[in-house]
Amino acid sequence: MPKYRDDVDRVLRALADPTRRGIVERLAKAPAAVSVLAESFDMSLPSFVQHLGILTDAGIITSEKTGRVRTVSLRPGALDVLHLWLDEQRTDAERRADRLGIHLARHHEGAPS
Amino acid sequence: MPKYRDDVDRVLRALADPTRRGIVERLAKAPAAVSVLAESFDMSLPSFVQHLGILTDAGIITSEKTGRVRTVSLRPGALDVLHLWLDEQRTDAERRADRLGIHLARHHEGAPS
Repeated sequence: MPKYRDDVDRVLRALADPTRRGIVERLAKAPAAVSVLAESFDMSLPSFVQHLGILTDAGIITSEKTGRVRTVSLRPGALDVLHLWLDEQRTDAERRADRLGIHLARHHEGAPS
Repeated sequence: MPKYRDDVDRVLRALADPTRRGIVERLAKAPAAVSVLAESFDMSLPSFVQHLGILTDAGIITSEKTGRVRTVSLRPGALDVLHLWLDEQRTDAERRADRLGIHLARHHEGAPS
């Protein structure tokens, strides 16, 4: 699955930088114009735009231009690939604990409250 | 929450490297002796040990020495911090979709199959 591995690689490299994580955290709340977004980050606009480029290449954000304003937003489901990879790394002990948790939750649902 | 932010940073930096991800993927299956684990990776032992050091510092793996054999294992729950960070980055649209999914699943459970 080279496509999947490449996606995981791109997403993790993109998120390994605190500025880019800051951008993702900000956009998770709401889309924002590049100029407004850039104000929250203490760096030159070219450097900032470079970070946006890496996030775009990783498929994490998208942007749309209306008139002279470019608005950036988080791509819904963009981080799913990372959820998937993380789920695959659960150890056998964790899987067993999860199954036990599900069993107990079901049992509890049937019990009088 | 500087501790939490530092943990997220360390874990993401550690996982941004494909060799270190390979080690995590291998250890998710079962713990392994360093010497055996190293055989699967095409690099010098000192370089390999350096990767193990980064994963250890990030709290992702632990190791134990028995006699002359050092066994490395994935620390259960080590990647929880990343699950948590990812959950925080879900957009409002995704949260709404999740709630709808839970509602539909509950409704379906009550319906005759």
